[in-house]
Amino acid sequence: MDWPGRLAKVRGMMDRAGIGLLFLRTEANLFYFTGVRRQPPHYTDDNHYGERAVGAYIGPQDVVLVVARMGSGYFVEEAKGKPWITELRILKEGEDPDAVMAEAAKKAAGAGRGVATDNRAWAETIRSLRRLYPDAPHTLTTELLAQMRAIKDADELTRMRRAAEITDNVHAQIVTKLKPGVSEFDIGHEIDYQFRVRGAEFSSFVTGIRFNRPGVLRQHEIRATTRKLEPGDSVTFDYGCLYEGYCSDFGRTAFCGDPPAEFVKMHDAVIASQAAAMAAMRAGQITAEGANAVARGVLKDAGFDAYFMHRLGHGIGMTVHEPPFLDVNQKDVLRENMTFTVEPSSRVPNGHACRVEDVVVVTPAGGIPLMKTPRTLTVVS
Amino acid sequence: MDWPGRLAKVRGMMDRAGIGLLFLRTEANLFYFTGVRRQPPHYTDDNHYGERAVGAYIGPQDVVLVVARMGSGYFVEEAKGKPWITELRILKEGEDPDAVMAEAAKKAAGAGRGVATDNRAWAETIRSLRRLYPDAPHTLTTELLAQMRAIKDADELTRMRRAAEITDNVHAQIVTKLKPGVSEFDIGHEIDYQFRVRGAEFSSFVTGIRFNRPGVLRQHEIRATTRKLEPGDSVTFDYGCLYEGYCSDFGRTAFCGDPPAEFVKMHDAVIASQAAAMAAMRAGQITAEGANAVARGVLKDAGFDAYFMHRLGHGIGMTVHEPPFLDVNQKDVLRENMTFTVEPSSRVPNGHACRVEDVVVVTPAGGIPLMKTPRTLTVVS
Repeated sequence: MDWPGRLAKVRGMMDRAGIGLLFLRTEANLFYFTGVRRQPPHYTDDNHYGERAVGAYIGPQDVVLVVARMGSGYFVEEAKGKPWITELRILKEGEDPDAVMAEAAKKAAGAGRGVATDNRAWAETIRSLRRLYPDAPHTLTTELLAQMRAIKDADELTRMRRAAEITDNVHAQIVTKLKPGVSEFDIGHEIDYQFRVRGAEFSSFVTGIRFNRPGVLRQHEIRATTRKLEPGDSVTFDYGCLYEGYCSDFGRTAFCGDPPAEFVKMHDAVIASQAAAMAAMRAGQITAEGANAVARGVLKDAGFDAYFMHRLGHGIGMTVHEPPFLDVNQKDVLRENMTFTVEPSSRVPNGHACRVEDVVVVTPAGGIPLMKTPRTLTVVS
Repeated sequence: MDWPGRLAKVRGMMDRAGIGLLFLRTEANLFYFTGVRRQPPHYTDDNHYGERAVGAYIGPQDVVLVVARMGSGYFVEEAKGKPWITELRILKEGEDPDAVMAEAAKKAAGAGRGVATDNRAWAETIRSLRRLYPDAPHTLTTELLAQMRAIKDADELTRMRRAAEITDNVHAQIVTKLKPGVSEFDIGHEIDYQFRVRGAEFSSFVTGIRFNRPGVLRQHEIRATTRKLEPGDSVTFDYGCLYEGYCSDFGRTAFCGDPPAEFVKMHDAVIASQAAAMAAMRAGQITAEGANAVARGVLKDAGFDAYFMHRLGHGIGMTVHEPPFLDVNQKDVLRENMTFTVEPSSRVPNGHACRVEDVVVVTPAGGIPLMKTPRTLTVVS
């Protein structure tokens, strides 16, 4: 990955926008510009001393990375071999986090008046930055960078292909475990396990497995419940992994026992809808809302559009959902090497559901899926 | 849980502080005041339409909960039977998130000039709120509420006892799986599985298992690696669960084969250090830094204090790490029914390690641990 090249690009953007300082959390944007990787989040808030100052302070020459002493070993390793990280500042217990922030910001900041931050920088960080720069205009990274991350380079596509390949391999193994009596959670847990033993860093989002049948209320609270598979259930998969910082996101459908004819018809329509959208996703030839409309049109013609209750897909890369979005009112023209999920999945409320989802690269010839797993309905018994 | 009582209390605090509007994300504080539960986080950023406006807008009479349409089913269920949620506003694709925010804030806000937000409310939310209330003083929830969450009531302690009991039960099962050849990740993954099947919502933080031996470099990047257990390894556990919204956090040590005498000596010192700190944690009789000093003193006398490289512990409740902290420079006096972890765990750099950690309730007679698992070294072969 050309980290110095990306840093040079964002510095050019900052210069043109009059932004002297860019603050990034230790999240996706920091990885994108410096190669310093994220860690998986803890499931409840984790509080280390001084965390409001933690993140990277980026200016025309410097990247000062401030980290909490607890857990700093990770960042010491990550910063190795990256001379563009000009300082790794370990914030120790008892130091004043605002003073450390002021020191890092002062070292990094250039002449521009503006301050840019990640969209999800914390309120407590913003308040401290505002005290340092009371009159600075505040720009969000989406305003500066989103379009830059949307088009993937060759190195990024290589990683995304590998993430897709690992996903295919996991799915081939997982369908062999689908038997009456197994729980959603058992299957979901096995997917998370298989990703890790096959070299993925972790799952890119909470693994979702549902056993659906008419009359059984959908449980909203968790993405894989302890409900056990029974003949007559449809099974929908929604999961993905992170490989060297890049995401996959994947969906397929199975049926336990003989699928009813109406279910097969809905499944066929979903697959046809996805195929039509992918064929239409030619670089420069269609907008994000246009692709969404193509998919919806196919489902409408088949009489199932009332069950397609979300957008066609989303940008994907270092985060699982990122701009642009294939949705109504989205005017972005699709460009070569943008990557999207295409998922016209349909669900009867408290009834059966059909999911299909692939990660697709936009090319002049249409959207090319990265996953190789067939989209045909898997029947198990 | 007395949710209306808690809401009344925070409204009193807001009134006294001149705060007309409190914005909470769909995280721990919202659960604390309304009973609307969190969901586990996704592992990379998840983006739903309009998320900058998502959260609760709380004023003297109203709680307006704004949620994204995607995933709104969860919150529809959570709001049921909670008449203090005066409006559940589902933000639909295509609506202007800032307009929805303005509508919710206007409905909820009282006469006070100030605006309070969660410490970790997003920069993009803060910027929109600032445009709505350009001159409002901004208060963080830690300034308003931290002390309130620190002392636990009977209902909270009941849940924390149950979280501890589940943890004990999981540990009893897990030590039977420790055999040469098993990997850190296998054990960690089994812990996560056992929590779920025993009724916990999810793990309270990323499960940490380490096999330690002199000369083997500590891997910083993940909390459970694919390294396999070998005779001569010490094994340190660091994990916990969430039960009905409340956390456990737990540590113990095992050894594969005959432990060396020096290792047993260090383990004994760690256990003695923890026991001394727990005995000293009498309500009203000691400060947070005082408890930390007691534990460090015992390790210093035994010659191991150089290996005790972090604070003695942290507050715990709805989040795994929350104020107060048992650390240097922390002057808080310990109060009855505050809950802390007590974990004077010690580690030789790139060598063996001893962990012990219990959740402890402060009483007039000292700190009473919630876990029942013996602290003796587990020896496996």
